[in-house]
Amino acid sequence: MEYFPAPLEKLVEQFARLPGIGGKSAQRLAFFVLGLPETEAREFADAIVDAKKNVTCCPVCQNFTAGGLCPICSSPRRDASVICVVADPRDVAAMERSREYNGQYHVLHGVISPMNHVGPDDIAIKSLVSRVAKGDVKEVIMATNPDTEGEATAMYIARLLKNFDVRVTRLAYGIPVGGHLEFADDATLMRALEGRQDI
Amino acid sequence: MEYFPAPLEKLVEQFARLPGIGGKSAQRLAFFVLGLPETEAREFADAIVDAKKNVTCCPVCQNFTAGGLCPICSSPRRDASVICVVADPRDVAAMERSREYNGQYHVLHGVISPMNHVGPDDIAIKSLVSRVAKGDVKEVIMATNPDTEGEATAMYIARLLKNFDVRVTRLAYGIPVGGHLEFADDATLMRALEGRQDI
Repeated sequence: MEYFPAPLEKLVEQFARLPGIGGKSAQRLAFFVLGLPETEAREFADAIVDAKKNVTCCPVCQNFTAGGLCPICSSPRRDASVICVVADPRDVAAMERSREYNGQYHVLHGVISPMNHVGPDDIAIKSLVSRVAKGDVKEVIMATNPDTEGEATAMYIARLLKNFDVRVTRLAYGIPVGGHLEFADDATLMRALEGRQDI
Repeated sequence: MEYFPAPLEKLVEQFARLPGIGGKSAQRLAFFVLGLPETEAREFADAIVDAKKNVTCCPVCQNFTAGGLCPICSSPRRDASVICVVADPRDVAAMERSREYNGQYHVLHGVISPMNHVGPDDIAIKSLVSRVAKGDVKEVIMATNPDTEGEATAMYIARLLKNFDVRVTRLAYGIPVGGHLEFADDATLMRALEGRQDI
């Protein structure tokens, strides 16, 4: 027999399909939403539809934006001669939090992953190459994640960009600030040693 | 500066207000929804509005239902002379999973909790008393959670029902099936000892 009425069961199912949300959590969330005042529940629903309708990809850097050029690409204060290549819009947010970077971005929306049937044409590599081909770009910083796929994607793109007069760099590897040597894995430690600098 | 476009930021905020969802998870969920096909995103939004609109409380047992009497209260196969009192509709689901119980339910929608300003009038106690007052009920099983507030609520209701010719019982305490003695807390062990039965 059914334990919950159909509309509630359906809402639970919708929550359960979200990543990292199991059956129990989905129930908890559905019940929470059911307990909201009608206007707030509708706000939630509207936020989903609005985001889906109004969030687009910037035609230049492919980052999410609310229509047209994104604020970073359209800002005259950002250095258009440096492009930081990231896999995901969230990585842009992470880089921006560092307040250290003043160039532009290019969001790949994924990494090359033969296991998951994601090839070079499935992510925003072509648009990156055509940005570089225009000739105004001096440096491309590869900032994909330091895992196998991120690494392979960075290498693939670096090789593509060899044809252009552009410097291609990679974020430095090493011990995370505030980290402990004893918890650092071998590969990180090796890279940190290789990349050691004079002080 | 803003890292995400406003409609996306708004969706992240909506997810972040859900219980147990922190900022990072909210981002992950919002990005997932943004990645859904338009129709599926709309289905999600509709599920919220539908649930909010169509899920009502059963006029008899106060359990969630899709309008009118709930399937349990309206089933002729359920024993209307026994009422199991639970705090939450999810507890009904848990009891039903045991496939052991054939009576009806009464969902309090909360427990008495002076700390949270929840008094006896804020939960569905009155409707329980008037069900019992009709005289057809032979037993009321208190199945609120075995914590302080659940306990206090059970005691409070039991005292109210003293005025009627009805047996009031409480779920048994003891070692959970499959549990380990060494991990059982003192209070549980004490209750298990008190409630020991001949074999």
